[in-house]
Amino acid sequence: MTRSIDELLARRNRFLGRGAPLFYAEPVHLVRGEGVWLYGADGRRYMDLYNNVPCVGHAHPRVVEALSRQAATHNVHSRYLDEKIIDYAERLAGLHAQEMSVVFACSGTEANEIAMRMARIGSGGQGFICTNAAYHGNSAEVGKLTHAPLRGRRDVHAIPFPERFRGPAKDLPESEQCAFFLAEVDKAIADFAQQGIPLAGMLVCPILANEGLPRIPKGFMAGAAERVRAAGGLFICDEVQAGFCRTGHWWGYQVAEVVPDIVTSGKPMGNGLPLAACTARRALVDRFREQTRYFNTFAASPLQAAAGMAVLDVIEAEDVRGNVNRTGALLRSGCEALANGHACIGDVRGEGLFVGLEWVKDRSSREADREGAVRAANLLKSRGFLVSNAGALGNVLKIRPPLVFNSEHAGLFLEALDSVLEEMGR
Amino acid sequence: MTRSIDELLARRNRFLGRGAPLFYAEPVHLVRGEGVWLYGADGRRYMDLYNNVPCVGHAHPRVVEALSRQAATHNVHSRYLDEKIIDYAERLAGLHAQEMSVVFACSGTEANEIAMRMARIGSGGQGFICTNAAYHGNSAEVGKLTHAPLRGRRDVHAIPFPERFRGPAKDLPESEQCAFFLAEVDKAIADFAQQGIPLAGMLVCPILANEGLPRIPKGFMAGAAERVRAAGGLFICDEVQAGFCRTGHWWGYQVAEVVPDIVTSGKPMGNGLPLAACTARRALVDRFREQTRYFNTFAASPLQAAAGMAVLDVIEAEDVRGNVNRTGALLRSGCEALANGHACIGDVRGEGLFVGLEWVKDRSSREADREGAVRAANLLKSRGFLVSNAGALGNVLKIRPPLVFNSEHAGLFLEALDSVLEEMGR
Repeated sequence: MTRSIDELLARRNRFLGRGAPLFYAEPVHLVRGEGVWLYGADGRRYMDLYNNVPCVGHAHPRVVEALSRQAATHNVHSRYLDEKIIDYAERLAGLHAQEMSVVFACSGTEANEIAMRMARIGSGGQGFICTNAAYHGNSAEVGKLTHAPLRGRRDVHAIPFPERFRGPAKDLPESEQCAFFLAEVDKAIADFAQQGIPLAGMLVCPILANEGLPRIPKGFMAGAAERVRAAGGLFICDEVQAGFCRTGHWWGYQVAEVVPDIVTSGKPMGNGLPLAACTARRALVDRFREQTRYFNTFAASPLQAAAGMAVLDVIEAEDVRGNVNRTGALLRSGCEALANGHACIGDVRGEGLFVGLEWVKDRSSREADREGAVRAANLLKSRGFLVSNAGALGNVLKIRPPLVFNSEHAGLFLEALDSVLEEMGR
Repeated sequence: MTRSIDELLARRNRFLGRGAPLFYAEPVHLVRGEGVWLYGADGRRYMDLYNNVPCVGHAHPRVVEALSRQAATHNVHSRYLDEKIIDYAERLAGLHAQEMSVVFACSGTEANEIAMRMARIGSGGQGFICTNAAYHGNSAEVGKLTHAPLRGRRDVHAIPFPERFRGPAKDLPESEQCAFFLAEVDKAIADFAQQGIPLAGMLVCPILANEGLPRIPKGFMAGAAERVRAAGGLFICDEVQAGFCRTGHWWGYQVAEVVPDIVTSGKPMGNGLPLAACTARRALVDRFREQTRYFNTFAASPLQAAAGMAVLDVIEAEDVRGNVNRTGALLRSGCEALANGHACIGDVRGEGLFVGLEWVKDRSSREADREGAVRAANLLKSRGFLVSNAGALGNVLKIRPPLVFNSEHAGLFLEALDSVLEEMGR
């Protein structure tokens, strides 16, 4: 580690608190970004295969220009009329087939706070179902859904997340796997009923990103939504990671083949400007507005509208969704080809430009190898490629580049991954 | 109301939800801002006497430039090293006499979520004391402090907010008023103890902005902090409204003559960019980091650092604090002079550029006149001056302009206020 990194770290511990989270054994000090590239203070260039926030690329000139122009024009809170935020809400609502309205916020956490409150108002219920490896935000309320116990907490009930690779149903045929996990939803609903807690809904990432992008038994999400609605609850999709063309579809719920009542989104919406939204069936938003008078100082601002609109413009103008489908297919097939030659990769999963490589100690036992995934991330970083590890067991190499990642970038990354796998010797 | 306003409203109801909050009987449609001025779509110019977010003035060129330059350079999450955010944290911490560290967030709500969690970790306690007319944010947890009942809720206990103008202690001498309200703090502490709930702390705006900027009996805040600490809790000042030179001091706690353990700030920090912070004694932040691994995607970013630093630069370069003291004194004395001639204004209060005019039906009964305050705000708006009403009873005209509001602006406003008072005929 260089002296300057040591000094920065010491000051960081002092002014941001000892142990503020950092990536990598030797952290990266970044000073510039452009497209899929990030540049270190030492002049090194890194390919960004992790960041979903700069979805149309780091420092996209069109977004920068929109942000600059709006900041120089005006930016106030939402209790005055502003046309841009209405236009943006209309455009965002129009990305769903149902008639939707939007409540803006500053972070995914805030959007999920709104969604939970809206579901409670809309359903009259209180209890929420989530998965046992979910993460939906950092507030006290939304944090109840982080590693929630399978039983015990009054208003949150976790189910084991549906997966086909390991876990209790791994040896069943897919339709029985689906039935197995849907039975867990039934149990959660029954548990709430037994405790006299009316159901508010189920909150879930439709591609189970934090769970490690597992293969979800076909029909699970639609079946879960049906059960939740039959029990009086609402079905909420957290699209903070899955949304905005990440999967090659506009929304992760399209991949999961389910129609949610409420959708939350965040990270990629403003390409780095804090911007998030809870988008829901119009009647739900009307009731939420009526009962809460919800207000958020920085949200639904002209600045958020300008940045958000510019991101949508770029996604359309540059056919970002088309690129995600084309490059995503290339990236996945390249990873699959490498996995064939290396026993440490037990599974290659994902949709569009969101790929998970499941690191295992042994292919037949499928024992998770977190250390292997961490080592691979550090070796890739030392070669100039930024990824991270994730998943319920921390053993999934998470590949989630800006959506302007193209075939040339994919080729460079696959070469680097190949060399890392050679170095790891498995 | 013009046809275009009607159409905008209809679209707003449709896409943002019916009843999304709006100011004024006839809402204002804004399209541009500069300094203390806002411009309507109809070409009208409004003097902004409400907005504390654009603290150094709407669209300040130095902040716009810093924001634009950083957005064009790079902006990523905080798990890579970045020098700017460390510099900014150091500068922010240096605005307090104690050794402090900073946890960044996107909104005042998020900052108060952090503060409550930090106080619980630091104290080992659970219960919070707030006032009965407080507002500290819109999440489920922080929302428990909004209009909390005086008794009954397990982990939040409200005390009647200290004031000298009306309420149960209004006829006592100041030292007895102070003792009266401190006894309420004692009662809250005793109630928690009786329920077996260890105290986490007290969370309070040091100038009681939402309560209506009451005259606080001298010694109350220091006495409250002493009692809270003696009971094992921590004293948290919410400086979202009071901080950043609003009162003519850097922090409201300096006016209140108390030293907090934890300080939250938000609104003015980024002049409109979502930016907030929980700043606290270093040991508290270290323990918080260690126990929570708190992470916030959009916070502690280079973009936040650039905007935040530019705001601090402008505050120093333009002697904003000096202006607040000079113009604030002018504004208050002008309001006092007008109040002398008009029985509808029962009290003129505040510090620096934060003035509250207490609207009453009758000076001797001091009966609150919310309708009067609302009417005055609407009449001022029709003359091109934007204020609002606030306070526990909604009868306080809240005058809180950008901090670059100068003596010329004050003169124009006082003329308009005079004419509104004449029109109201009281």
